[in-house]
Order: sequence, then structure tokens, then C-alpha cells
Amino acid sequence: MKSTSRFFVLLIAIGVGIAALASPAAAQTDPLPSWNDGASKQAILDFVAGVTAEGGPNYVAPPERIATFDNDGTLWAEQPTYFQLAFAIDRVKALAPEHPEWKEKEPFSSLLKGDLGAALAGGEPAIFEIVMASHAGMTTEEFEKSARDWIATAKHPKTGQPYAAMVYQPMLEVLAYLRANGFKTFIVSGGGVEFMRVFSEEVYGIPPEQVIGSSGKLKFENRDGTPVLLKLPEINFIDDKAGKPIGIHQHIGRRPIAAFGNSDGDLQMLQWTCSGRPGPHFCLYVHHTDAEREWAYDRQSSIGRLDEGLNQAAADGWAVVDMKKDWKKVFGFEK
Amino acid sequence: MKSTSRFFVLLIAIGVGIAALASPAAAQTDPLPSWNDGASKQAILDFVAGVTAEGGPNYVAPPERIATFDNDGTLWAEQPTYFQLAFAIDRVKALAPEHPEWKEKEPFSSLLKGDLGAALAGGEPAIFEIVMASHAGMTTEEFEKSARDWIATAKHPKTGQPYAAMVYQPMLEVLAYLRANGFKTFIVSGGGVEFMRVFSEEVYGIPPEQVIGSSGKLKFENRDGTPVLLKLPEINFIDDKAGKPIGIHQHIGRRPIAAFGNSDGDLQMLQWTCSGRPGPHFCLYVHHTDAEREWAYDRQSSIGRLDEGLNQAAADGWAVVDMKKDWKKVFGFEK
Repeated sequence: MKSTSRFFVLLIAIGVGIAALASPAAAQTDPLPSWNDGASKQAILDFVAGVTAEGGPNYVAPPERIATFDNDGTLWAEQPTYFQLAFAIDRVKALAPEHPEWKEKEPFSSLLKGDLGAALAGGEPAIFEIVMASHAGMTTEEFEKSARDWIATAKHPKTGQPYAAMVYQPMLEVLAYLRANGFKTFIVSGGGVEFMRVFSEEVYGIPPEQVIGSSGKLKFENRDGTPVLLKLPEINFIDDKAGKPIGIHQHIGRRPIAAFGNSDGDLQMLQWTCSGRPGPHFCLYVHHTDAEREWAYDRQSSIGRLDEGLNQAAADGWAVVDMKKDWKKVFGFEK
Repeated sequence: MKSTSRFFVLLIAIGVGIAALASPAAAQTDPLPSWNDGASKQAILDFVAGVTAEGGPNYVAPPERIATFDNDGTLWAEQPTYFQLAFAIDRVKALAPEHPEWKEKEPFSSLLKGDLGAALAGGEPAIFEIVMASHAGMTTEEFEKSARDWIATAKHPKTGQPYAAMVYQPMLEVLAYLRANGFKTFIVSGGGVEFMRVFSEEVYGIPPEQVIGSSGKLKFENRDGTPVLLKLPEINFIDDKAGKPIGIHQHIGRRPIAAFGNSDGDLQMLQWTCSGRPGPHFCLYVHHTDAEREWAYDRQSSIGRLDEGLNQAAADGWAVVDMKKDWKKVFGFEK
């Protein structure tokens, strides 16, 4: 090591040393101000205190401090329908002039007449058609632009807020709190990875390379010396249910020590993080219990069903956030 | 921001400020001491100086400073055969007692008799059989242990060194130099992602979540409450040639601004990084020209063939490292 870099290391060491001296004072400020005092908040604080206590029995070295978060219903809302589906529908409408054949073809025909119920009556194949029509047949750059434009302009039908404002303020605080304590935070969502990446960095502070999601197949093409990636109408990976631990392993290659979800689609991720394993770990379910400030749904919901997960959370002592009781504020735009 | 965290930010700012004052001195120390002065070294230094010069025409913000490195033949050697194949062969030998049927079945029969040539005569299907027999049918944790044990004990047949010592000292310096300048470094290799991850952090300083590679399919199983990921004998993704830009996009979601390779298998990654795009970018090929200290091979080699890539590098002005001329030292263990 040369003397100048040694000098720099020394400065950092002094900084860290003084910061450590200052930390008792820091502990008095509340890192989760939108959380009411209660079991959920305390469980988060206790877990972080444990894994960061050097020499303590639950200490975890920083590189292993991996935390994974579902997106829809965990970091932002997912009602009255997944926001990415709203995007897909708006895209179909925008693309309709280039597709006169859609006037005669379901699910597009119903969709363009404004009858969402009829359009989605075809179930998953209909949703697949809508998503592929809006997400494939273009380059990755073209898709990114369309998603970026939409997120910048579209408004949520109930609140009138931009979709990116429909994120949960208490969860933003958890993300920041974990990162301030040496965690690397990842999104692990059934949503499309390219869709989430256009806002994850700005909205959550999570860079694109820490977003894991569902994806379509791609084709590399060299167009007169300019390479492009073309989005094919074929599924590559579904990052849901048992796909979540697989996506985590393929992408991160380490087992998370903390995982946050809100539905049965997250159950395997939480099991992979918290079941039958040594060492400290933390699992949390966000339970949608606030019909006034947000929505109330769980065991019977078609979107974000939380049934088996509630059972296992109770049996295994995972944290379960009661949105109505535990959160002072749901969205940042609330007064 | 509370006063204590403001205090901490101030300390960091002072540290960074003093470090900045110290940087003219730092510039006098050579960040690439194993490189001889010449065009390749200068090209690396100039590129980094450009993208880190705030206010300059080539400045790139730190989050966009993504650099991708092939592994075999770029960061460590790949002769007389890919090291992962050596691992697979050793695994087959170790597993043979549990597989009496291999005595009668190619390619295992020849392999166990020590006739590697005959074993590999079956071409890719034979290699596939060997890799699957040694890489699948176990949990990800079991595989990790077997790879970790091998890398800790196996020795290279020519040098007698542990395989992890067969890394190129000049490239370790490039990795460290880029990271010291705000780059995030990734491996993007045709090698197996799980195999590389057992040594990437210790050997290259690259954490598992920044390793992209080929992979097999996985199955999530809940074994009496203990979840495992089972490795299936099925290919999930081949991270080679056109697969490299695809792997980069799926995993990182940003286009690299620097890419390093050594073969035609890296060509599409280099094109994706350097062809027909705006903004600063840097591509480098390691050309194996040193038959004494390493190996000399290029256009005709079956391993690590560099043919088309050499042509495009010349046409597009990419850096080409002449190992014999440009590197003072190839391996760290050289005197």
C-alpha cells in the first residue's frame, strides 16, 4: 500500500471511529418514524441490532446482509389491479392504431371498448396476450422508454396520484434503515424486471442490478453494427412462488437473511430465508388490513392472496404487519 | 436529517475532501504496476481518467460505471483445459464408486481409465454428460461444498499451483483500479455461475451477486420444513456469445461502459459495450501471446478461439493486450 492510500484509509478509520463514538446518540433518533410502536417495529429493530452487534451471538458480516423485498403489495400498492397490468392496458390502447386487427380480436376488442372485465374473462391467457402485445416485439431500449414515459405521466384511478407515489412510506424507511446498517436490498418480484427497473433506483434507492423479476426471452441482433436486444413474445422466467428462491439463487447466489412479502406468492421466499436454517434470519408479511387508507384483503383475494402464508407466519413466529394498526402513515402524500 | 447523521456525513465529506487534495500525489503511484508502459496500459488509464473527470466531456456518474469481465482466459488461465472441466472430471472420479454402471458407459468409462481424449471424443454431448453427472442431482449447498473443497485442494497439472493462483496479476490490478474509481465489477462468463461464485469474492473481490454465468435448472423442494434447491440435469442458460449481452441485460439491466474478454465467445459482449452507442466506452481483448509464461493461442485454438474478435478489435480500435509484451508478470506466483 502506498503512503497516500494509507493516509486515506487512516482518514476513513478516524471517521468510522468517531461515528462509532457518536452512535449512542444516533440510536435515540427513530429510524422508522412512520411506524407505531408495537411488535412489528420492535422485531425489525431487534433483528437489525442483533446482526450488527459485533462480537454478539447474532452478528452477521456485512456481505451476508442480504434483504429481499417483494414489490406489488409489499413496497407499493397492487389495487385495484397490478400497476404493470394498468401500464400494459394503456400501451395496448396507445398501440391500437397500428393494430386494426385488434378490433375483432379478444382480449383486445373488449379492452379497447373499455370493458376490462370482459377482456380479462379469458384468465391468464388473456393477460398473457395483453402483456406480450405491450411488452414484446420491440427492443429493450424502446420498451424502457415506453415504461419510463408511462410511469412519469399515468395516474392511479383511485387516488389520482402518480403510480410511483403509491409506495408505502413505512417500507421506504425500512429499506433506508437496512441500508444504513450495511444491508444490500433487493427486489424479488413477480413483476416484470424491466418494468420495475425504470423506477426502482429513483423510488426505492435500489439499482437495476438489484432487481429480480419475471422476464421474457431476448434475442441479440446486430443491426448494421449497432447491437440491439429484441424482446420476444416468450416467457423466460416467472419470479413467483417457488420461482422466488430460484431467482434469488440464480441472481444473488447467497441466501437472504431477511425477506419481506405480502402474499402466498412470497411464501417460498420467506421459507428459503427463515425455515430450517442456522443463523439469524427475519421474515415479515405486510397484511393489508386498512380499507380506508389503502385496501383490506387477504385469504380470499384474487390479487395478493395471503392465506397459507398467514398460517405459517403464525406457526413460525414471523412478523406480521397490521397496516391499520402498525403504520402511522401508509403513503407519503397523506397529510 | 438528524444532527448525529449530519455529523457523520460531515466527517465523510471532510475525509473525501482531504483525499481529493491528496489525489495529485496518488496519481503518481502506479495503479497497474504489473503492466509495461504501452498502448494497452495507457488506454486503460486514459479511459478511467476520462469517465471520472467531473465536468469533463466523458464524465460518467458512478452508478453507470459498470465493467464486465469474462473469466476463463481473461481473469484466469484456461489451458490445457477449462478448469471447471478439470473439476468435473475429478468429481466423476470421486463419484465413480457410487456409479458402477459408469464402467460400461461412455464417456465415463474412458474417463475413469484415464483416457481423456477418448472420453471427450464424443464432443459437446460427452462434455455435457460429464458436467451434468458432476453438477446435478444434488442440492445447491452440496454442490457448493464440493466445488469449494476442490478449489482448496486441486493443483494445476502444469504449474502445480492451486487453480485459484492461476489468475492474472495484471487483471487483478485492473479490477482493483476500476473499483477504486467507482466502478462496479462483474464477471460475465460461459463458466458455471455456481462454480465461479465459490472463489470470486476471495480471489477477485467480486461478490456472488456480481457473477453472471451459465446455469442449470433448479427445483425448489420443501423437505420436512427445510427448503432446498435441487440441481436438475437440464440447462437453464448458456452465458456465451449472444448469451452474454442477454445475461448482462437480465442480470444488471444497464449497459456496461467497459468490457474485457479474450475470445470470440466475448465478441457480442464487447459489441454490446462498444458498438454503435453514444457515450464513453472501453473494450479490451487479452491476446494470449506468451508461450513461455502462459500459453500462445488465438485464431485456430479449440479453447478460447480469438479470430473474428481480433478482426473487429483492429477495425474498431479496441485495446488488445499482447500478454508477452504488455505484462511484466502474468501470475502472482512468478518470481
